[in-house]
Amino acid sequence: MTRVRVDLNVSLDGFMTTTDQTPESPFGEDWGRLTADYVATRTFRERVLHDSSGEGTTGVDDAYAARYFENLGAEIMGAGMFGLHEHGEDPDWRGWWGDEPPFRVPVYVLTHSPRPTIEFANGTVFQFLGASPAEALESARAAAGGADVRVGGGARTVREFLTAGLVDDLHVAVVPILLGRGENLWSGLRGLEDGYTVTTEAAESGVVHVSFRR
Amino acid sequence: MTRVRVDLNVSLDGFMTTTDQTPESPFGEDWGRLTADYVATRTFRERVLHDSSGEGTTGVDDAYAARYFENLGAEIMGAGMFGLHEHGEDPDWRGWWGDEPPFRVPVYVLTHSPRPTIEFANGTVFQFLGASPAEALESARAAAGGADVRVGGGARTVREFLTAGLVDDLHVAVVPILLGRGENLWSGLRGLEDGYTVTTEAAESGVVHVSFRR
Repeated sequence: MTRVRVDLNVSLDGFMTTTDQTPESPFGEDWGRLTADYVATRTFRERVLHDSSGEGTTGVDDAYAARYFENLGAEIMGAGMFGLHEHGEDPDWRGWWGDEPPFRVPVYVLTHSPRPTIEFANGTVFQFLGASPAEALESARAAAGGADVRVGGGARTVREFLTAGLVDDLHVAVVPILLGRGENLWSGLRGLEDGYTVTTEAAESGVVHVSFRR
Repeated sequence: MTRVRVDLNVSLDGFMTTTDQTPESPFGEDWGRLTADYVATRTFRERVLHDSSGEGTTGVDDAYAARYFENLGAEIMGAGMFGLHEHGEDPDWRGWWGDEPPFRVPVYVLTHSPRPTIEFANGTVFQFLGASPAEALESARAAAGGADVRVGGGARTVREFLTAGLVDDLHVAVVPILLGRGENLWSGLRGLEDGYTVTTEAAESGVVHVSFRR
């Protein structure tokens, strides 16, 4: 039975985008702090950095990181996450992830300017759709063959799926820092917990994992 | 060595005041949900409800509730928390707590309309001050005799002490519900974590206890 999943990192005050990017620091220091404990996990090192040294943390954060990659059949992302806002003019742009994107499944990129499908040897296939969240989900669900569909990001895309009530499992890693600005995950989601079972778990790192499951 | 302490309940989206009060439900249902796990503790039942039956939860939430009452030498609160916004016209108003207010120490109430000191047999003494946060803290510190001073509330008073950098220990019980509106604890506190050690602990109830300690 396919479940629609979302995984996010947010600050204690709910911000999931950061605002301190500069030409010298294109991601910004806040983004580094928001993702540090996830990036430090063994799973992230293996799956995203292709580091098979066995290094990385193996505690609660890593358990959630491992679940992130389990039983996924398809992914949906916004145009910005694929890089089309910066690189949409480049017909050869293949995403940020080099020759081994960490998805290994069909990925549906929502864009008003569709482009040809891109296939990678590791199973990652980017397809570009001008579609509503519900329509994109139908395609992804068909492609997933019973496995789960993840809505990967960015912030606006995730919020569209949440407000449309399309998400079955929302996992939020709350990092105990206060960013004070950016796009707030929780904005306009009063009562989201209705219809979900909500659980919380604190990791050794101090990150709090909040899970909404229906 | 006196420490200045704050304890709060907030929703997952940071709201510490609620907005659904009606004449029939003067606290509102949201307030009940925000405080339910605290009110359910054995410590709250004993200390605030004077219930010595031994009932109430005894897990992580109760451990924090017990700490709430430990080593306190004085308390500071805003006029609203004492009830002066509703009852300031009544010269006989003695607060919301009946004959046994749960403080048992000197309590400094910040108000622009000072009134005579009120003493209770259990050690609670309400004194009314037209003073800045720093000035009130000086009085409370002197009265505390080396024990801690708590800034009890309400929302605006707590935020004044936080933004003035006067708080040594901030304990926030984050309740996994989304209120979507009210006064947000975190607003304007970007970087509050600097200078604090921040720890997190999830209770059996799902409440997450976040502690800022310097």
